[in-house]
Amino acid sequence: MFFTIDILGTIAFAISGVLVAINKKMDLFGILIIAFVTAVGGGTLRDLLIGDTPVNWMKDMTFSYVIMASAIFAMIFRSKINYLRTSLFLFDTIGIGLYTVIGIDKGLNAGLHPIICIALGTMTASFGGVLRDILCNEIPVIFRKEIYATACILGGITYFMIRMLPIQDNWVFIIAGSVVIAIRLLAVKFKIALPTIYK
Amino acid sequence: MFFTIDILGTIAFAISGVLVAINKKMDLFGILIIAFVTAVGGGTLRDLLIGDTPVNWMKDMTFSYVIMASAIFAMIFRSKINYLRTSLFLFDTIGIGLYTVIGIDKGLNAGLHPIICIALGTMTASFGGVLRDILCNEIPVIFRKEIYATACILGGITYFMIRMLPIQDNWVFIIAGSVVIAIRLLAVKFKIALPTIYK
Amino acid sequence: MFFTIDILGTIAFAISGVLVAINKKMDLFGILIIAFVTAVGGGTLRDLLIGDTPVNWMKDMTFSYVIMASAIFAMIFRSKINYLRTSLFLFDTIGIGLYTVIGIDKGLNAGLHPIICIALGTMTASFGGVLRDILCNEIPVIFRKEIYATACILGGITYFMIRMLPIQDNWVFIIAGSVVIAIRLLAVKFKIALPTIYK
Repeated sequence: MFFTIDILGTIAFAISGVLVAINKKMDLFGILIIAFVTAVGGGTLRDLLIGDTPVNWMKDMTFSYVIMASAIFAMIFRSKINYLRTSLFLFDTIGIGLYTVIGIDKGLNAGLHPIICIALGTMTASFGGVLRDILCNEIPVIFRKEIYATACILGGITYFMIRMLPIQDNWVFIIAGSVVIAIRLLAVKFKIALPTIYK
Repeated sequence: MFFTIDILGTIAFAISGVLVAINKKMDLFGILIIAFVTAVGGGTLRDLLIGDTPVNWMKDMTFSYVIMASAIFAMIFRSKINYLRTSLFLFDTIGIGLYTVIGIDKGLNAGLHPIICIALGTMTASFGGVLRDILCNEIPVIFRKEIYATACILGGITYFMIRMLPIQDNWVFIIAGSVVIAIRLLAVKFKIALPTIYK
Repeated sequence: MFFTIDILGTIAFAISGVLVAINKKMDLFGILIIAFVTAVGGGTLRDLLIGDTPVNWMKDMTFSYVIMASAIFAMIFRSKINYLRTSLFLFDTIGIGLYTVIGIDKGLNAGLHPIICIALGTMTASFGGVLRDILCNEIPVIFRKEIYATACILGGITYFMIRMLPIQDNWVFIIAGSVVIAIRLLAVKFKIALPTIYK
């Protein structure tokens, strides 16, 4: 089941990349690259920082196939994709939840401090979108709007808190991931955002 | 002979970096950095992703010397460099062809899947220019115009197709590299570009 | 003593990140990330390129704690921070001097050529600021104004020149670092900048 949800996240990230790239009038190749970078950027940064190379998507071809298929799908059905916006948002949010716990887990396996693990989880979930925005020459949306990384961080804190309880690892994963998802959904529903500071 | 052409590519990439940086009114140091990044950026990303560190140009000083000399040359003769534009374009194109096969070869040595190897070849050839454009605060030209990466990808596919034939490795290199070069030249001559998608 | 000055540099870099991020109207999370990236970006690039992973700040929590504390401090006292501008500039300059020698030292330990070591020192000192500017969608200030990297490079050359003299390693560190600091201070005081080239 985890596998399937992971793939749903990859699909959603890839499609979000396609949509931004089309908006920027990129050519077919540019669109494919942005889709790829959005989907695997976070995991790549994580793997580079902890030194786990060759990075993830180079060793498991599933990522490449799924991203290419999603990008082609999104390009063909781009005019209809607005009808899918709610599903996409849901995939995206599920993807963030799962990517966060995957990142934390990798950090723990590398023997890193909980704070660093939470940072790795947050990166895994959000850096793809940051790269997408940099390549498209925008200030990354994550730095300006949305409760996004905050949801990852709170989910990460939950992870380490419930990990001390006598429950199974699988449940730690599921609960922490669900916290990320729930916070993001609530934040978007009630339009909650972090405050900004003006001088 | 390969060595010489590799150096021609490095020179061309370095000079293209200098020209963009001068346009952006950078200072001498900025120009040198952009020259360096344009010339070694692709190989650096490739080496980081497959975990071959310290990266290439840190171990072989030829790159540093050639890039510094090219940058100084380009700064001195910047007013005359327009006369060299055709030669530069040719160097650049030869460089792309060779960088593509070098990248593929490195991927194969790391035991990676052909699709990943082609991606590595394409990155080696094109990521330097992407970094140059990001540092100069532009949407990377590669995502918008030109058959550039597409030439690398088609050359990479050729590489793996002719590799199955009973011919020598050297010829695989030369033919695949030539395909990259030929496609780029034809695309520029006949103004062929990938289609863009507008919503 | 070195430790303390290193921390002063980290603090100054983190605060400079906060100030730029506030100007860009980022939210709290964005500000924290920019602070972090500005402070550890240079060392991270250095460690990735030489293959020393997990990178520095993942293994030593001091960085994380100091950066978080500095960012919170800077956000609270942002209206008063103008009074601190001179102290900040001084911290920043000391930080650059020390980061430069730390980078050179790491390069030497990895058995790299002096030119590459100087490049690593310069990166350690300046890449955090470059990343900060890229994430905020500006042409990196380092490529346009200021004697900044030049100070690092001249300090690096000094390092390798005095290293041949029969003096203690500690003194090599201190003298080379001081050269960086002195050049930067003089350049700012007398408004010296590298020339730019216009076509």
